[in-house]
Amino acid sequence: MKLIDKKKLENIPLGIEVNEILLPHHAQSIIPFNTSFITIEPGMTTPVDCHLVKEMWLIVAGIGLLTCDKKTSEIKEKDAIYFNSMQEHAVKNTGDSRLEIISIWWKS
Amino acid sequence: MKLIDKKKLENIPLGIEVNEILLPHHAQSIIPFNTSFITIEPGMTTPVDCHLVKEMWLIVAGIGLLTCDKKTSEIKEKDAIYFNSMQEHAVKNTGDSRLEIISIWWKS
Repeated sequence: MKLIDKKKLENIPLGIEVNEILLPHHAQSIIPFNTSFITIEPGMTTPVDCHLVKEMWLIVAGIGLLTCDKKTSEIKEKDAIYFNSMQEHAVKNTGDSRLEIISIWWKS
Repeated sequence: MKLIDKKKLENIPLGIEVNEILLPHHAQSIIPFNTSFITIEPGMTTPVDCHLVKEMWLIVAGIGLLTCDKKTSEIKEKDAIYFNSMQEHAVKNTGDSRLEIISIWWKS
């Protein structure tokens, strides 16, 4: 089943794009998480994010500097990162190509 | 928390690579799904896959021809596809660049 609806989020800073996969109503009880494609242009930093839902990031392309609970670490293609509820996180694209991330989030 | 372990699956045909994120033991009860990075070189087709777990594919780069329950459909970047339990699925990379897919699967 192809999930055809997606929504480009508004009020996102220039140079950052978030496309959320909108699950059709009948799929919401079957698929226990939500997903977004996040694209960050070189040099750009995402706003600090902090929320009750737990989240996982899969880095699909590029490199970046992740700040999580005030600690920083380098991230790169094929890394996976887990954010607990209310854990502050932001990332800067420190490379010269797009930083592309899949975000998966779910209620605990 | 950076999830540092990943496993490149063996016995996968040449031209296809599957890197599974291995969740650390303490994360297995927190993260209700598993994930893999799948890379398919141009012209290659994945073996037909069929399993009890439900699965979602997120297409992160490239184009392909998906066969699911004997029906075919074109897939491309930023598509999302859901496979129910025991639904046969395979994909051919019909483009001239790598087809890159994130697979997420979970028990129903």
